[in-house]
Amino acid sequence: MSVSTDPSPSPFTHEDYGSRMARSGDAARAVGLDGLIVTPGPDLVWLTGYRPTAITERLTMLVIVPGHRPTLLVPALERPDAEAADGAPVLEIVDWTDGTDPYQVARDLVSPEAEYGISDSTWAMHVLGLQRTMRATAYRALTECLPMLRAVKDAAELTRLAAAGAAADATYQEIVHLRFAGRRESEVAADLARLLTEFGHEQVDFTVVGSGPNGANPHHEAGERVIGEGDMVVLDFGGLRYGYGSDTTRTVVVGEPTPEQHRVHDIVREAQSAAFEAVRPGVACQEIDRVARAVITEAGYGEQFLHRTGHGIGVTTHEPPYMVEGEEQPLRPGMCFSIEPGIYLAGRFGVRIEDIVTVTPEGGARLNNTDHGLRVVE
Amino acid sequence: MSVSTDPSPSPFTHEDYGSRMARSGDAARAVGLDGLIVTPGPDLVWLTGYRPTAITERLTMLVIVPGHRPTLLVPALERPDAEAADGAPVLEIVDWTDGTDPYQVARDLVSPEAEYGISDSTWAMHVLGLQRTMRATAYRALTECLPMLRAVKDAAELTRLAAAGAAADATYQEIVHLRFAGRRESEVAADLARLLTEFGHEQVDFTVVGSGPNGANPHHEAGERVIGEGDMVVLDFGGLRYGYGSDTTRTVVVGEPTPEQHRVHDIVREAQSAAFEAVRPGVACQEIDRVARAVITEAGYGEQFLHRTGHGIGVTTHEPPYMVEGEEQPLRPGMCFSIEPGIYLAGRFGVRIEDIVTVTPEGGARLNNTDHGLRVVE
Repeated sequence: MSVSTDPSPSPFTHEDYGSRMARSGDAARAVGLDGLIVTPGPDLVWLTGYRPTAITERLTMLVIVPGHRPTLLVPALERPDAEAADGAPVLEIVDWTDGTDPYQVARDLVSPEAEYGISDSTWAMHVLGLQRTMRATAYRALTECLPMLRAVKDAAELTRLAAAGAAADATYQEIVHLRFAGRRESEVAADLARLLTEFGHEQVDFTVVGSGPNGANPHHEAGERVIGEGDMVVLDFGGLRYGYGSDTTRTVVVGEPTPEQHRVHDIVREAQSAAFEAVRPGVACQEIDRVARAVITEAGYGEQFLHRTGHGIGVTTHEPPYMVEGEEQPLRPGMCFSIEPGIYLAGRFGVRIEDIVTVTPEGGARLNNTDHGLRVVE
Repeated sequence: MSVSTDPSPSPFTHEDYGSRMARSGDAARAVGLDGLIVTPGPDLVWLTGYRPTAITERLTMLVIVPGHRPTLLVPALERPDAEAADGAPVLEIVDWTDGTDPYQVARDLVSPEAEYGISDSTWAMHVLGLQRTMRATAYRALTECLPMLRAVKDAAELTRLAAAGAAADATYQEIVHLRFAGRRESEVAADLARLLTEFGHEQVDFTVVGSGPNGANPHHEAGERVIGEGDMVVLDFGGLRYGYGSDTTRTVVVGEPTPEQHRVHDIVREAQSAAFEAVRPGVACQEIDRVARAVITEAGYGEQFLHRTGHGIGVTTHEPPYMVEGEEQPLRPGMCFSIEPGIYLAGRFGVRIEDIVTVTPEGGARLNNTDHGLRVVE
């Protein structure tokens, strides 16, 4: 099944943000926290729509306490920007001015003996400032206590992820018509970036072009190697459209593939398909990894599948949930993540196939829909 | 006087990095700290030459304790990158593997009851992890205890800052020959970015084009306003070349200036020049601000000079020391900072003139050298 795409989704409303903040406060309480402290980054964007121009030494923090109106503390200079955020109507906004101590202002928002979840990436100077000012407060890193905070997407988020996926698909449909043989990986990567932008991405995060032996290194990005006849080429690209991520991989071949290239590609394709078919609510994340790994291991390439099977995606291109051994989190409808098994033959070539999928009550739904067949390019 | 530029400086040596780490350890001890903990960011680049591909949830930290070999703790996956850093030969490198607790590994590097300066931007999850694992350790944010850590540049750093300044000068010399009237600010900004790159910048940080009333807002970047005849246009641009920053501002006029435009420009020019002439070792940073402000205030525009006079520059384009009232730090030879007074006439136009200067034993030396006259463009 496929998810319909809306080429220009309407903005999130303050009700959307209010609902996310209320759910987050409830989730905090459920794990024994008194509230959440969220500083600039993906969580703040998701909760309020507010993204300061830069993350600086000036304290900006959102405080969510169940039963209270969420409060955003901002530098006075940045108040107009905060007030313009789509979530602002459901926020209390408080400011502090240069030359005063923001942690003293924070005292009015934070209970003196309470425990808070705090953004992983909050700057040390702010953590230390809060601890210095309110010695009996306690803090836990947000992804340690609430790793699934943003994992379940609502309908408006799914629309955006589907739009990002459709743009990635369109990029692939175009790139395979361009020339590969004789061009550098970096040139093909530049084409991928241009196409993602032309198809509506406001941000390009990665454009991996791994040709021949470079494809066997899953950390390779794109270099000066000239692509040649007979090369397998791993294309892994994505970024943000309407604020939500795309991330897809196809492996193409320059000219007719050898039987081995074809066979390895078929195994990865089967692993990707089997993992996708295993998606349904209640299945543990690690089970998706196991299903993909079993196909590859049975084919004799278990040692050459060098990484986990997938990662979540949303306002960032890598986030929980992770499809990895040991992750017992059950899948829930609305979760979105990659399924991207691969086989890496050191010094020779690599194959990876990746789609973003979402969990529906009935099973998985793909947000990428280009063909998985081994595509021959020129 | 001017600083000579080397178009392609030789890389920093491990002796350069060793010397910076030793000096930093001594500085830590001088303010009563037992050592320094430095996580990825500008301080780590400056101390070791190491810049991880991304700043993530995986702990990377440098520990400097006077009298001991500096130690860099890295994720095992990133060890090859760390070993390739120019400062690696004078570092002990220790790694930790996924699935183990990096804070337990950190126990071997950190004394259980010592006090450390820690990078301002260290992630909260790492500060909390260290505190949880070693309860009697204490931490202070680095810029609070050692704000001038990177403020004094050595000769090899000055060469790079001069090269960045020369590229910014070359950019200005070109941009004034391009058309302004009838084009959008964003188009001129794109030209500035292109020119900075052509003249050797590997990173463009900002390209402000503030035309007419937009120039009166010092926070304006570049927008869709079409530049018109008679507009004053503030051009403020910079980025990194060879890892060191440029940041210069000139204000141009489209066609012949009015007497008022000319007069306001002359006042800012005089303020910039007076502040530059005040630069010498031992003078307090705030004195540079006072000198610039006095010229503008005497001319009747004190209320329209909306910001501090300058900021330091090095591996970042904004860092201590700040030329601002209240900053009593004395200037020392090798410090590098901007002098950038401005006058902002709300709803009408703005003027700002900015050069990077360095402190020499005899006085100031400019790292930007294009003319300060009011340039007429088309």
